[in-house]
Amino acid sequence: MTKPQPGLFITFEGGEGVGKSTNIAFCAEWLRARGIEVVVTREPGGTEIAETIRERLLKAHHAETMQPLTELLLVFAARAQHLQALIQPALARGAWVLCDRFTDSTIAYQGFGRQLPLAQIEQLKALVQQGLEPDCTLLLEAPLAVGMGRARGRADQAGEAVDRFEQEQLDFFERVQQGFDWLTTQHERFRRIDAAQPLTAVQQQIEQVLLTLLPGADS
Amino acid sequence: MTKPQPGLFITFEGGEGVGKSTNIAFCAEWLRARGIEVVVTREPGGTEIAETIRERLLKAHHAETMQPLTELLLVFAARAQHLQALIQPALARGAWVLCDRFTDSTIAYQGFGRQLPLAQIEQLKALVQQGLEPDCTLLLEAPLAVGMGRARGRADQAGEAVDRFEQEQLDFFERVQQGFDWLTTQHERFRRIDAAQPLTAVQQQIEQVLLTLLPGADS
Ligand SMILES: Nc1ncnc2c1ncn2[C@@H]1O[C@H](COP(=O)(O)OP(=O)(O)OP(=O)(O)O)[C@@H](O)[C@H]1O
Ligand SMILES: Nc1ncnc2c1ncn2[C@@H]1O[C@H](COP(=O)(O)OP(=O)(O)OP(=O)(O)O)[C@@H](O)[C@H]1O
Ligand SMILES: [Mg+2]
Ligand SMILES: [Mg+2]
Repeated sequence: MTKPQPGLFITFEGGEGVGKSTNIAFCAEWLRARGIEVVVTREPGGTEIAETIRERLLKAHHAETMQPLTELLLVFAARAQHLQALIQPALARGAWVLCDRFTDSTIAYQGFGRQLPLAQIEQLKALVQQGLEPDCTLLLEAPLAVGMGRARGRADQAGEAVDRFEQEQLDFFERVQQGFDWLTTQHERFRRIDAAQPLTAVQQQIEQVLLTLLPGADS
Repeated sequence: MTKPQPGLFITFEGGEGVGKSTNIAFCAEWLRARGIEVVVTREPGGTEIAETIRERLLKAHHAETMQPLTELLLVFAARAQHLQALIQPALARGAWVLCDRFTDSTIAYQGFGRQLPLAQIEQLKALVQQGLEPDCTLLLEAPLAVGMGRARGRADQAGEAVDRFEQEQLDFFERVQQGFDWLTTQHERFRRIDAAQPLTAVQQQIEQVLLTLLPGADS
């Protein structure tokens, strides 16, 4: 048996409701049809231990308030587990990993949104990722109202409330978008996708990106 | 009202069964008798959120193994919460905080015992403590056999098993002791207590240390 090429690590980023989950499913199908082993995962979470930490993070109903630094350390504790127990072994055996949000979301939401010091996040990122970066990050971009409208539509269909939107102010989400925007200026790995278009047009753009990533493609 | 003197932060370190809990109770009583507000706490834990993280750390029965770096980040997540929600407010209002284990134990157990890179621990320590160090650390020292014998005696009395001793090898505990030993060469704040002596003799040594810490004492 020849050792497989290490797989590609692809992350999907962007605000709520822009279509990350929908398009990860599309990418997984597209890649599997070309014989590639695909692992679909998400953050925070992705393994049993990391998902337990995720629950702890999302369940915010204490008499005591969770400190922002505590939250940040829990996010990276889950990420360390996810990387070492799932992502790195998958990449090593040649699978492609499609991950719904990753550290860019921590920078956009905790850094820009909640205004935690970026230096703290960068320090933890370096400690936990040890230089490992996604090979490619698809940033799905749409005006806030579009993503909110879609998430609301999805929630209505499922008969659920859209809590997260009620809880944070509009200027929080504007800062998050500025965060993603800034990140594209920092890393070559970003591919900006106009996610405001109809789904078929979005998927055409994504397919163009995937074609450049296939073995043998000249990107 | 005059602003109170900030209180003192005193930590108690040493191996299992050397008498940390017994002597913290003694110190708390001794200080309260002198009109000092005392907060007794422990690590990992000390607040509702931090204790939940402690439970997660101690409950190690997963199909999945917890990665050492995940464990380290969880320890410091609990510590960030403990410091910001309990220790710092107590010190600020003038209370003395007596803490059963702190970062020195992380260095001795995770660093020396489990042989995690000390640089990683130091980086997280700097991030979470932001320069805050204990004012004084009482290191209770006794030969391994003494602490083990005491812990076994206590467990027998309570009809419990002494699991932790069975799980780790002797050389693990020897490395932990070397870790504490090394720490005393790094920080002025350590006071070494010969904890192998009978309890009254141990408490006489501790009383001598407390006398040097009282307001107005020349240490
Ligand atoms: N390009 C598109 N045009 C119209 N509707 C879309 C488009 N992309 C996705 N949707 C729909 O919008 C809703 C949100 O999509 P999806 O759940 O994939 O977004 P998401 O980014 O994963 O959201 P979240 O951040 O909440 O996880 C779904 O109902 C989906 O079918
Ligand atoms: N100097 C001493 N001489 C004899 N027995 C002692 C002495 N100090 C403590 N003990 C007894 O040894 C046992 C262990 O003491 P203690 O629980 O205070 O240790 P500890 O350091 O808190 O242990 P652990 O690390 O397990 O929390 C107790 O039964 C206690 O009464
Ligand atoms: Mg989604
Ligand atoms: Mg104890």
